[in-house]
Amino acid sequence: MKNDLIAAIEAGGTKFNCAIGTGPDDIRLSTRIETTTPMETMREVIAFFDHGARQVGKFNALGIGAFGPLDLNKNSDTYGYITTTPKEGWKYTDLLGSLRDVFHVPMAIDTDVNAAALGEYTWGNGRQCDPLIYITVGTGVGGGVLINGKPLHGAMHPEIGHLFIPAIMSDAPEPDGVCPFHGSCVEGLLSGPAIAARWGAPAENFPAEHECWGEFSTLMALALANLTLTLSPQRIILGGGVMHQTQLFPMIQEELQRVLNGYLQTYELMEGVRDYVVPPGLGDQAGILGAMAMAQQLL
Amino acid sequence: MKNDLIAAIEAGGTKFNCAIGTGPDDIRLSTRIETTTPMETMREVIAFFDHGARQVGKFNALGIGAFGPLDLNKNSDTYGYITTTPKEGWKYTDLLGSLRDVFHVPMAIDTDVNAAALGEYTWGNGRQCDPLIYITVGTGVGGGVLINGKPLHGAMHPEIGHLFIPAIMSDAPEPDGVCPFHGSCVEGLLSGPAIAARWGAPAENFPAEHECWGEFSTLMALALANLTLTLSPQRIILGGGVMHQTQLFPMIQEELQRVLNGYLQTYELMEGVRDYVVPPGLGDQAGILGAMAMAQQLL
Repeated sequence: MKNDLIAAIEAGGTKFNCAIGTGPDDIRLSTRIETTTPMETMREVIAFFDHGARQVGKFNALGIGAFGPLDLNKNSDTYGYITTTPKEGWKYTDLLGSLRDVFHVPMAIDTDVNAAALGEYTWGNGRQCDPLIYITVGTGVGGGVLINGKPLHGAMHPEIGHLFIPAIMSDAPEPDGVCPFHGSCVEGLLSGPAIAARWGAPAENFPAEHECWGEFSTLMALALANLTLTLSPQRIILGGGVMHQTQLFPMIQEELQRVLNGYLQTYELMEGVRDYVVPPGLGDQAGILGAMAMAQQLL
Repeated sequence: MKNDLIAAIEAGGTKFNCAIGTGPDDIRLSTRIETTTPMETMREVIAFFDHGARQVGKFNALGIGAFGPLDLNKNSDTYGYITTTPKEGWKYTDLLGSLRDVFHVPMAIDTDVNAAALGEYTWGNGRQCDPLIYITVGTGVGGGVLINGKPLHGAMHPEIGHLFIPAIMSDAPEPDGVCPFHGSCVEGLLSGPAIAARWGAPAENFPAEHECWGEFSTLMALALANLTLTLSPQRIILGGGVMHQTQLFPMIQEELQRVLNGYLQTYELMEGVRDYVVPPGLGDQAGILGAMAMAQQLL
């Protein structure tokens, strides 16, 4: 089982990462495919796995972590579809079905962020953490949640990126958020485009000591406070391009303690806070490796 | 098993409800004991069960739903304690231990609101809902969460009452919340005392059409939006004294749809919204019956 070849797709809004291997230390073949139209992108994805299987051997399961929203209700007619995404051309795309038509192996699909959470739980910084939250901050903000090692679904799946937070609690004037649905929700305030809109340049242009990061830390701490109060997680992993600014971790940890103001007297929020909000152990590979972990669970 | 006698305690800040029976339709004996000091209250609780057992028969398990925060970590030295409560005299009270010293039956302890959620899941309006959230709005605001029918714990337990919401999104001027820890968190804005502080009289004095309820509905909708985005529940039950104002349910449902602004296209948030935010099927008995459900699960 452990040496069975498995396949994985991390389906993102700008690229699809695809891999075949047996685990994180044994990726036999991988590629990145640009996300254009569903037809074109899926044709290239299928070609990769088709050629790949001939090159390195047949794979026995496929895991897919995808941008969403996704329909994850197995009883639904649109199970495995990308549904109401704003991504041009991708509304109601039958992602899972287009792969099932071609490859006759067990398949699992989940959100990219639930997949990343599972990757971190299996091989990264989330081992034995229950609940575990994984948040990515980049072009958008998304979050995955594992309870007892299993992705949380429920009526749909978490959409943590759109949490409401009292932006007014930061010292800055009420920022105008960029979320087309909610204005100043988490994504509207903290995504890369939100930072660029508020501060006039892309996030990566600002030095570690720029004031934008102080405000970012306060707002992120409010979001993490809400997640802490709701899920009582044992760890929160923050990944994505914006979180490459590693100076943010101690700043966010401190702000989280400040806004919760001593109300929750847990190890995680007191002496253990340095281990409570951490970067991904798998770096930017959390998503694709998480999809691989999903495939492995099917064997 | 189904006809075994079981015992239940709902330990609240003003009273302890105690019962012996076999289930919700067969309560053989019950009482309310005033919450004074731990010593005095627990002595009366123990006397009730002691006499009760002689009167109606020995009980085979005991379930306890209690105000918190509680230590629910079974490996902890203070497992089953009420910990950092602001309730005078009750800090670090060994609730579970004081009962274990006297009654030698299996016991389970959880928060009052996790217990109430379990009561609703077992016998009330939360049947087959996964996840299920139960929120009580009274002197304080608290919430319980069941995932797959099991109370969520994690590092501690949910403390939904202290969620941060952007109060500024209501039309009212930024209200000054009354939470000693967080000012304008959910409890600081929506509890009975918060309403009284803001509007100058106890909540029950205001008629159904008073403007206080419009603001309440917007703020509650923001809290429920955050819970929806985080947990993706299939139902949210709102209980407690303030929610006896039944005109609030359609108002909150409508505001929830308004603040989420069509982002989540689920049945629960569209045509099913009337069944998404509902009152408890067990009314004010959810807590004590939930404690009974906890006991029943031990058999």
